[in-house]
Amino acid sequence: MEFSLTTLGTASALPTGSRYPSAHVLNIRGRLFLIDCGEGCQMLLRKWGFSMLKFDNIFISHLHGDHIFGLFGLLSSMAMMGRTAPLTIHAPKGFSEILDFFLKQFGGDAVKFEIRHNMLDSREPVPVFASRNIEAFAFPLNHRIQAYGFLFQEKVPRPNIYKELIEPNHITLSEIGRLKSGLDVIRKDGSVLEASKFTYMPFVPRKFAYCSDTAPFVQEVQWIYGVDLLYHEATFMDAMGAMAASTYHSTTCQAATIARDAHVGKMVVGHFSSRYSCLDGLLAEARSIFPETFLAGEGEKFSIGQRKI
Amino acid sequence: MEFSLTTLGTASALPTGSRYPSAHVLNIRGRLFLIDCGEGCQMLLRKWGFSMLKFDNIFISHLHGDHIFGLFGLLSSMAMMGRTAPLTIHAPKGFSEILDFFLKQFGGDAVKFEIRHNMLDSREPVPVFASRNIEAFAFPLNHRIQAYGFLFQEKVPRPNIYKELIEPNHITLSEIGRLKSGLDVIRKDGSVLEASKFTYMPFVPRKFAYCSDTAPFVQEVQWIYGVDLLYHEATFMDAMGAMAASTYHSTTCQAATIARDAHVGKMVVGHFSSRYSCLDGLLAEARSIFPETFLAGEGEKFSIGQRKI
Repeated sequence: MEFSLTTLGTASALPTGSRYPSAHVLNIRGRLFLIDCGEGCQMLLRKWGFSMLKFDNIFISHLHGDHIFGLFGLLSSMAMMGRTAPLTIHAPKGFSEILDFFLKQFGGDAVKFEIRHNMLDSREPVPVFASRNIEAFAFPLNHRIQAYGFLFQEKVPRPNIYKELIEPNHITLSEIGRLKSGLDVIRKDGSVLEASKFTYMPFVPRKFAYCSDTAPFVQEVQWIYGVDLLYHEATFMDAMGAMAASTYHSTTCQAATIARDAHVGKMVVGHFSSRYSCLDGLLAEARSIFPETFLAGEGEKFSIGQRKI
Repeated sequence: MEFSLTTLGTASALPTGSRYPSAHVLNIRGRLFLIDCGEGCQMLLRKWGFSMLKFDNIFISHLHGDHIFGLFGLLSSMAMMGRTAPLTIHAPKGFSEILDFFLKQFGGDAVKFEIRHNMLDSREPVPVFASRNIEAFAFPLNHRIQAYGFLFQEKVPRPNIYKELIEPNHITLSEIGRLKSGLDVIRKDGSVLEASKFTYMPFVPRKFAYCSDTAPFVQEVQWIYGVDLLYHEATFMDAMGAMAASTYHSTTCQAATIARDAHVGKMVVGHFSSRYSCLDGLLAEARSIFPETFLAGEGEKFSIGQRKI
């Protein structure tokens, strides 16, 4: 069961010839989520083999151009490809106006699918998406304008029963159902089958958090605590700390400190300033604090395997 | 003295992983003109070594997304790079609304340069740009919405005098001036120095025409007649003629027929439908009618040398 992040656009506000603005694909158990949609996103999706029609939820962190200028093209192409399935775009409140403009100027009769805007406007983490086995939350970041991070996780799975214990203990079907619901079974003879002894979690739910664009903030460590995979912006190296602070971005060292303090599994850094043609320095700085740091790259895939308990 | 077209985006409405929407750079004697600005244009400009700040005139053929969705990103980047020089965008009349939306939503205090919209709204060719030695005209195309083609040309140069004739004929400075203005000199003794015999054109002015998006139309051959280089859309192969007609596009054969009948020097075709993963068939079809046809490719440069008469 896949759980992976593919980084497509890795640039910050000013793209380069080889680094495009922010765009990421999260694949959880085959379901695809698009996180940010910078210019060129639709071409990168095609280049890296993702069908545009497979996305029904797009998460936009904030309304700066380098995170949304790919959206008009993507929506146009979805329309041209004959999309009819509704699409939900999770984005801060100003997005409705942008969407209305797009539909009026470029949508015309071509857009034959419903586009729902799920408005992000909260000062605490809030649920934004849930399916049978996945849930997602948005939480406010610390940027120049309203911006949101996202936490995606597999839902806690229903426990499995140890098959080898069924026969020796003459466990009935209804008893199995009760045990798998986490409830103990008390039999007529007074004996007890404890759910904790007869069942086990089939796997540990995996978690991914996305923090871009943001300067560090007080609750950040708490809100992303213990995720298996963290994407964190690292626009600048440590020496540019003043610039990072004034533009509400993070340095490599700040991102790595967050990752370390939040005990995340591994961290991918991206959203690199165009001033860095070579990224080795950023990686070295981050790894000096949090060794499990990796650089986002175009088409680079970061997978988290399923762990048994 | 350079005269070249570099094709950047070669796709039609639906881009692919390797073919981006329309964007072209025309270089006339070192002056750069951007013609159409599809999504990803700013990244392609960087990739192929064109400084965004060198453009002060952008020509937008029409307001379909695949010709303008790169503009918001380009303008934002120009602002971030500290541009102060004014920029003229030649575009159909609906463009003002799009520009206003951009400035209101994304321009903010960042855009510190004037953006002038030169409104295209004519049913005949009209001059849209002139410098000391270049002039450009816009002419209406035949598309689903108002669309314009562009003709760029070097201005007819001032004639040179044959230096070897000056001394034997005792030609004075003021006589040289008169001859170079194309006027004959009549001397007091009644003898005549004919301008046509004593002067020559230093070079043949070069011409380039851009026709995208369009179905063929009656005046097309006349309006682009004799250009050295023609960019013409060829969205479809001949077999898709009905589709081309209904969407107001051209087939390879139609583009080649136009090029042949207009006696152009060479033709570059682009704006390829995403259905063609291999373009060999399009090239073969076009060359069967007009052999001097070439395929637009990302970063491909088509140059016209300066010709003496």
